[in-house]
Amino acid sequence: MTNTATAAIVSPQDFLAHWQGHRALTRRVIEAFAEDQLFTFAAAPPMRPFGEMAWEIHQVSELTLNGLLTGEWPEPDWREGVAHDRAELLKAWDALSRRLEREFPRVDLAFFPQTHTLPWGEMTGWAATIYTIDNEIHHRGQGYVYLRALGTEPPAFYER
Amino acid sequence: MTNTATAAIVSPQDFLAHWQGHRALTRRVIEAFAEDQLFTFAAAPPMRPFGEMAWEIHQVSELTLNGLLTGEWPEPDWREGVAHDRAELLKAWDALSRRLEREFPRVDLAFFPQTHTLPWGEMTGWAATIYTIDNEIHHRGQGYVYLRALGTEPPAFYER
Repeated sequence: MTNTATAAIVSPQDFLAHWQGHRALTRRVIEAFAEDQLFTFAAAPPMRPFGEMAWEIHQVSELTLNGLLTGEWPEPDWREGVAHDRAELLKAWDALSRRLEREFPRVDLAFFPQTHTLPWGEMTGWAATIYTIDNEIHHRGQGYVYLRALGTEPPAFYER
Repeated sequence: MTNTATAAIVSPQDFLAHWQGHRALTRRVIEAFAEDQLFTFAAAPPMRPFGEMAWEIHQVSELTLNGLLTGEWPEPDWREGVAHDRAELLKAWDALSRRLEREFPRVDLAFFPQTHTLPWGEMTGWAATIYTIDNEIHHRGQGYVYLRALGTEPPAFYER
């Protein structure tokens, strides 16, 4: 980061740890499904299977990291996130977690209060980033219901 | 707040707006249920009905605001959050939203990086606060599945 805040609600380091903690938990939820159910089961149609939500989370997270680094926020090609293949999903997931760890510290802090143009509207870098994480938590919470409906104990929410 | 950060991921004002936006959305989810189903229906037993989750969110949010203001984090009396009465739940919800709006700006920014002793362990003020919001998003996401299972369109996630 180019600036260090002396008094703030959250430091860049703690915010990165927060994001990565959620990514690690979501990864465990992806793994908790039987593979055939990950991409086919929905507890309440017309909701999507959790595997499709996970691909969306991946693509939005990638968009957000790229946007914070470059100021460019192009709409993802959603067709790149459709494989019904857990290994492929986890490979993309882990590669992005490694990029996030390496590249998030390079984000200019000034990007967070600035307004950016995303595919879904204008918002600050903070709003874009926290929305990305919130969307992950929201859909993962839905995945918990799917797992319960399948008789599977989900990973502990409080572990990151 | 006693200090103002010049460069930070999120300002106290924007963080408060973030929290209140989630509270407003959760309130709409509480209202979207038929009242008898709010406190009885679960899409995947042994999960709790959404009304019980909402009371938990209320009590944890109250604990967090009190803790940030006073440094005291006593375990809530969970028996105070059991009424199967939506009007009572919403009354408590709205009163807390008003308190949050008035009192959160008085929180000492130094409280966020400091470690506090909560009923469920030691954590920083930041971790305690964001966990409170994350827990709300997590359970509300589950409420979305309940509503879908009941054939009800949930409120838009992106509206706050």
